[in-house]
Amino acid sequence: MDFFPSALENLVDKFAALPGIGRKTAQRLAFFVISLPDSEAVSFADAILDAKQNVRSCGICLNLTDADTCVVCQNDRRDTSLICVVTDPKGVLAIERSHEYNGRYHVLHGVISPMNNIGPDDIRIKELIARVADGGIEEVIMATNPDTEGETTARYISRLLHPFEVKVTRLAYGIPVGGSLEFADDATLMRALEGRMEF
Amino acid sequence: MDFFPSALENLVDKFAALPGIGRKTAQRLAFFVISLPDSEAVSFADAILDAKQNVRSCGICLNLTDADTCVVCQNDRRDTSLICVVTDPKGVLAIERSHEYNGRYHVLHGVISPMNNIGPDDIRIKELIARVADGGIEEVIMATNPDTEGETTARYISRLLHPFEVKVTRLAYGIPVGGSLEFADDATLMRALEGRMEF
Repeated sequence: MDFFPSALENLVDKFAALPGIGRKTAQRLAFFVISLPDSEAVSFADAILDAKQNVRSCGICLNLTDADTCVVCQNDRRDTSLICVVTDPKGVLAIERSHEYNGRYHVLHGVISPMNNIGPDDIRIKELIARVADGGIEEVIMATNPDTEGETTARYISRLLHPFEVKVTRLAYGIPVGGSLEFADDATLMRALEGRMEF
Repeated sequence: MDFFPSALENLVDKFAALPGIGRKTAQRLAFFVISLPDSEAVSFADAILDAKQNVRSCGICLNLTDADTCVVCQNDRRDTSLICVVTDPKGVLAIERSHEYNGRYHVLHGVISPMNNIGPDDIRIKELIARVADGGIEEVIMATNPDTEGETTARYISRLLHPFEVKVTRLAYGIPVGGSLEFADDATLMRALEGRMEF
């Protein structure tokens, strides 16, 4: 591919380094970008720099924000005695979409994953412990992903929270609403049966 | 989604505007970019600006280059009496991969597409006619995509070339009908070049 200009190759490399973007797609995206009007290409580049410079972690929950604290933590109608622990900011987005939760969050920015050399100190667990230790927290809801790593992380944290006077819960497992029983996997069905509730 | 910082939303919008990138993917990419070290985010933005500023069209064949002429046109071991007409720079890449062609190219930067309001004057046909009119060209090989628009464009150009003393051929239908040149495998492209037929 060395008959394309190096500046273009370089841009293809950048796109190809993004998660889930293969070489062909990266090429398509790079071609598209250089076909954009100058102003739009510049504003794309600016958007990257701007996001990188202005987006930081909320001083309370570590969710993404461009202020000192995030929109959720700024909202004084939120129940500050509740913390919902999520893996990443997309978790916040997911829980908010349910319109069911009115507490605050704690974003771990990762999960414990020995396979990937990520230990408890590599994610933001001690910030959570510090928040609970400060007092005023009644319940911590673990909302990590329902996979092995999420489960491990949740169990690890719940053990650390044991010494504190705080209720530690986790999201219920079960069959997804609107889904079909036929397509639910064995593990989910097992959990759904275990967690069955009375009508 | 208004509890995410606007700088992040803006970056998500930029990614979502790229072809084939949906909202969820754009979000994933934006999150990834802001998780990059400062230097890498800056170099991504630079790559966009650099590619946009330094990549231009070859003065002869309109292929992409960062010099006045592209690598193919600069190569004096290439047969200058042969022109292979492709829709876009990816076509050049595809033909080069076959290692079967030793002439020059002409990149149309589009196809005639009445559905999308793209007429003959919107793509670089007159530059091709000018090259042929200048003389020294013995054969023009049409290598537009084997779909309706590519075929229409090829026929249109072959008619324009009729007055000139030049053989006009097209790639053999070794390439799968309805496919895209970009995804054709090397062997198929080689056969297609070998079996090219006169219009």
